Amino acid sequence: MEEAAGGQQAPGRRLAGRVLLYSSLILNAVLLARHHFFLLGAGGDDGNGGSSCRLSWALQAAREAESVAAVDCSGHGRVFLDGVAGEDGRPWCECNTCFSGPDCSLRTPNCTADADSGDPLFLEPYWRRHAAAGAVVFSGWHRMSYFTTDAFFQSVELENQIRQLHRAVGNAVVDGKHLVFGTGSFQLINALVYALSPDAGDATSPPARVVATAPYYPAYKLQTAMFDGWEYEWGGTTLDWANASRNSSVDGGDFIEFVTSPNNPDTQIRKAVLGGSMAVFDHAYYWPHFAPIPSPADEDIMLFTMTKLSGHAGSRFGWAFIRDDKVAKRTYEYVQSNIMGASRDTQLRMLGIIKVMLANLHGEDDIFAFGHDVMRSRWRRLNAVVSRWSRRISLQKIPPQYCTYFKRIREPSPAYAWVKCEREEDEDCHEALLKGNIISREGGRYGASSRYTRMSLLKTDDDFDVLLERIADLVNAEKYEAPGSSSI
Amino acid sequence: MEEAAGGQQAPGRRLAGRVLLYSSLILNAVLLARHHFFLLGAGGDDGNGGSSCRLSWALQAAREAESVAAVDCSGHGRVFLDGVAGEDGRPWCECNTCFSGPDCSLRTPNCTADADSGDPLFLEPYWRRHAAAGAVVFSGWHRMSYFTTDAFFQSVELENQIRQLHRAVGNAVVDGKHLVFGTGSFQLINALVYALSPDAGDATSPPARVVATAPYYPAYKLQTAMFDGWEYEWGGTTLDWANASRNSSVDGGDFIEFVTSPNNPDTQIRKAVLGGSMAVFDHAYYWPHFAPIPSPADEDIMLFTMTKLSGHAGSRFGWAFIRDDKVAKRTYEYVQSNIMGASRDTQLRMLGIIKVMLANLHGEDDIFAFGHDVMRSRWRRLNAVVSRWSRRISLQKIPPQYCTYFKRIREPSPAYAWVKCEREEDEDCHEALLKGNIISREGGRYGASSRYTRMSLLKTDDDFDVLLERIADLVNAEKYEAPGSSSI
Repeated sequence: MEEAAGGQQAPGRRLAGRVLLYSSLILNAVLLARHHFFLLGAGGDDGNGGSSCRLSWALQAAREAESVAAVDCSGHGRVFLDGVAGEDGRPWCECNTCFSGPDCSLRTPNCTADADSGDPLFLEPYWRRHAAAGAVVFSGWHRMSYFTTDAFFQSVELENQIRQLHRAVGNAVVDGKHLVFGTGSFQLINALVYALSPDAGDATSPPARVVATAPYYPAYKLQTAMFDGWEYEWGGTTLDWANASRNSSVDGGDFIEFVTSPNNPDTQIRKAVLGGSMAVFDHAYYWPHFAPIPSPADEDIMLFTMTKLSGHAGSRFGWAFIRDDKVAKRTYEYVQSNIMGASRDTQLRMLGIIKVMLANLHGEDDIFAFGHDVMRSRWRRLNAVVSRWSRRISLQKIPPQYCTYFKRIREPSPAYAWVKCEREEDEDCHEALLKGNIISREGGRYGASSRYTRMSLLKTDDDFDVLLERIADLVNAEKYEAPGSSSI
Repeated sequence: MEEAAGGQQAPGRRLAGRVLLYSSLILNAVLLARHHFFLLGAGGDDGNGGSSCRLSWALQAAREAESVAAVDCSGHGRVFLDGVAGEDGRPWCECNTCFSGPDCSLRTPNCTADADSGDPLFLEPYWRRHAAAGAVVFSGWHRMSYFTTDAFFQSVELENQIRQLHRAVGNAVVDGKHLVFGTGSFQLINALVYALSPDAGDATSPPARVVATAPYYPAYKLQTAMFDGWEYEWGGTTLDWANASRNSSVDGGDFIEFVTSPNNPDTQIRKAVLGGSMAVFDHAYYWPHFAPIPSPADEDIMLFTMTKLSGHAGSRFGWAFIRDDKVAKRTYEYVQSNIMGASRDTQLRMLGIIKVMLANLHGEDDIFAFGHDVMRSRWRRLNAVVSRWSRRISLQKIPPQYCTYFKRIREPSPAYAWVKCEREEDEDCHEALLKGNIISREGGRYGASSRYTRMSLLKTDDDFDVLLERIADLVNAEKYEAPGSSSI
């Protein structure tokens, strides 16, 4: 019976056993295949990093960078590898202004809006979105030497990429011009003043006068005054010299005129006033996210900076295009004698950043399209609050204009609001805004009237939102002061 | 029968079937477990990168860095991520001097030895050996802001690590002193000259005189002459002022004395000659791989640089310890007005490099033990060739001395050979060596006699080997000229 029973039940058991066996074997086959696949790393990156990466020395550093980047700061801050370590020995969240707490989730009530510096953090989200493309890995032995691929201090590949970017964007004619790197275009201001001034040996010639048309970027005056010497000195605004001859001052000293176009603070397009041969054109903002590009700039000396292009202010990298051989040589010599060339670490990082921007031009990940969208919407929202109600402050007027890069009329998207206080009693506009808990930058620092002040619009979204709140408070207060105005 | 047969064979079959089934199930369990293990990445790095790394955005950049680093340059060159791209679009090998070819395997016959620059590539092999620890990964959004953890331009964590390193090495007293970063200590030379000079506003006081004792590092003179102004000027060697009062020159102008100790070029330990209150001590070479550390330096103003510490000349990073509040503030202001602070990219990379050095102090991977071994053996080999035979050139004498870091008498391991040409006709030692296909740096540039010239000993092994060959040629030529000498 048992046998018979066994005999009778055997086919079912055997069937079940075989099914189980075969499925088990199949599962093994799958797992073995997949395991083999992993070891080969042929799977590539499956997005969640499940695949093997076949990394050796770079793995540890990559994990550290990702683990730090993964810390949650509530969207109001970020953790950096070199952040100050907390009690647990790990770097903590560095919060945006008006946010605090371990994860930056606490919003400071009635926080003062800081619209002072031109910190270009509006582009930070772009680089977070393109994390893989924007990352770069340094080996411990990367470019230890003083000398790089131009046999001195500048990366030839970076030079090529910078020239390519200008050609592709169409904002500058770069052929037939020397390219000199600096630790920010900031350093190149004084380097060019040095290069354009009479030779130190030439005691006969009076010092060159460094001038600009108000309102002007304060650094021209500050640097020139700080580093002044036998060769050059700050000469004030071009207005003071309007009656002087075009190329030399009353006592024969040459002029070095800084022309910022589009202008900081008021975003106006500028031309040289006292003659072009000694003019330095600062085109920090001549990129499609801030301004229309009617045609490529082609002046003899042009300054650009990564700070306002990609948003990497902390990297301290800028460059000058210089047509004249001797001026270029002297500018390069200044950078050499001052710092022996811009950090090679930064040069490698900037190379990667520029390659990402180039690869995405006119695509859906175009950094200029992204930047223009952000800044245009901020300008719209600011104008909506200010223009409609306020008789207290006014903003500069910027007409829409055709842009050869976007191939269409583009709406204004300035980096700064140049604010004028309209009330007679608000002679010091900076002070008036400060009473409203808004930190701006005094017009006086730009050689302009104190009725004007600059508000930075290119910081984080949090900064801009708080700024808009404070301005709304001012406007509402104004309405309560004069209720009738609300019915206008 | 079948049944019976089946009945008879069934146990064997069932047994085999079960064995197969169970082993298959066990294999399932193992593979599933292992697969799960992989997905968790708990396997860690198995050395060849076989395990999963759970990387996402950093993976691509890490792979690129490793693939570039893996290119074979025959041990006589290296490929960098930002190297000039060859026809295949990939960066090619950058070869050491006297080597060429796609993989740097071709040795240039009778190659001229370049012993000119102080390029500290003798430390490159150290960082190749510690590839994992020395690597750092930058996210695209790392420190985009102008502002870092000191609320301005300097990383607080980097400050802490630098102070820790000095304490651990025992080469400087860092407490009670401000720390100011620069783009190389090179930039801080002029920054300190500015900070120690009379205020620009103070027209009554004569310019400060910048002086040094010959032979001195040429940059002090070059920078001061290039950037001179109302506030300071190059004053020549201290010898010219030996009879002047200790703290002010004949016309009352103050002295700013640069004291390089150990000295470049001759590695002598130096003290201030014209009084200490305005002395800047350049301790670029005051680290155990170059010099004994008898006790921690504790001057009011001390300069250090990563270039000669870790070998990262290309990163352009140095620092100054400054006791006086006002001097520190003015130095910081100079760096701020000149470049808005050293590259944050470099600050992150240097933080990692310093952490590696700190973690390995006194261990088998101690960078100072490594560096001292290399430089000591070079000095031995050089002396063996020069001292024994040559009556034509001589080297500076350096006695062995006790080092508090190594806790023993250490043999000399200078960064440079300060060569004197002994023959009457060799008045220009640099020229004499050049005839022997050796490029050195003229003694005249150090304010010394042309009978002296500097040979750099801290470049690559290839550079040093070629240098030794050329010197051997000189010595042999000398022997043939005066055979008797070989029997001495």
